[in-house]
Amino acid sequence: MEQRLSLVTLGVRDLAAAKAFYEQLGWRGQEVEETVFLQAGGIAVVLWSREKLAADCGLPSDAPATGFGGIVLAHNVRSQAEVDDIVAAARDAGATVTRAPGTTFYGGYAGVFVDLDGHAWEIAHNPGFTLARDGSLTLPDFA
Amino acid sequence: MEQRLSLVTLGVRDLAAAKAFYEQLGWRGQEVEETVFLQAGGIAVVLWSREKLAADCGLPSDAPATGFGGIVLAHNVRSQAEVDDIVAAARDAGATVTRAPGTTFYGGYAGVFVDLDGHAWEIAHNPGFTLARDGSLTLPDFA
Repeated sequence: MEQRLSLVTLGVRDLAAAKAFYEQLGWRGQEVEETVFLQAGGIAVVLWSREKLAADCGLPSDAPATGFGGIVLAHNVRSQAEVDDIVAAARDAGATVTRAPGTTFYGGYAGVFVDLDGHAWEIAHNPGFTLARDGSLTLPDFA
Repeated sequence: MEQRLSLVTLGVRDLAAAKAFYEQLGWRGQEVEETVFLQAGGIAVVLWSREKLAADCGLPSDAPATGFGGIVLAHNVRSQAEVDDIVAAARDAGATVTRAPGTTFYGGYAGVFVDLDGHAWEIAHNPGFTLARDGSLTLPDFA
């Protein structure tokens, strides 16, 4: 198994609302057969009905859509001001801010919000992680 | 907010077991302060204690670690045989296969497993999605 991933699919209750949320943050995608595909660098983020997604994967869909699913998506940026701006924009778009922007234990600055379906996003400025001009992230050599 | 993501952090109950699982699939990372960082193309996949991750993000950690969290990660490959091989390797590493490899409604071939902590991975061969030599995925123009 090569060390990479291709898509991150977010199960949503209301596709139109979820699409509008990400559009308000500036993301643009293609809607095809009740699915929204958003190119995100070298991968894609997909919005799809939580029930259809669960059924398609042989997973139970009876779990509540709220609560912590155990995955956090991070979006790293180049300055603390960008963290503040994006978290504020997400709040304006209907997100719930679960951690106000502030300094982190690793010497960065970050805030966390959950989208309309409870999917968690950390918006972070981490000076130790290199962001290329195209936004790709390269981990440091921690040794 | 630029249209990209930087890290996908998977909350895990047993870091050593989770690390061993992904290592058995061929992934290699760096362990730093009870966190495993795995470079995955232009992003990183991170393994971290589910409780610490939830607390760090201001999220409840009392939800069960089992059940469907509403997110599916996909790993696209270049042939049906690769799907079979990776799903078999994941089963050998302790994953639960929730959908045996088979043809999909979109004309591809895929299987799904959940890792030791219930995180769902779809291994897919989708002839409609272009995979570059470096493994990055480009969505088609669906119009």
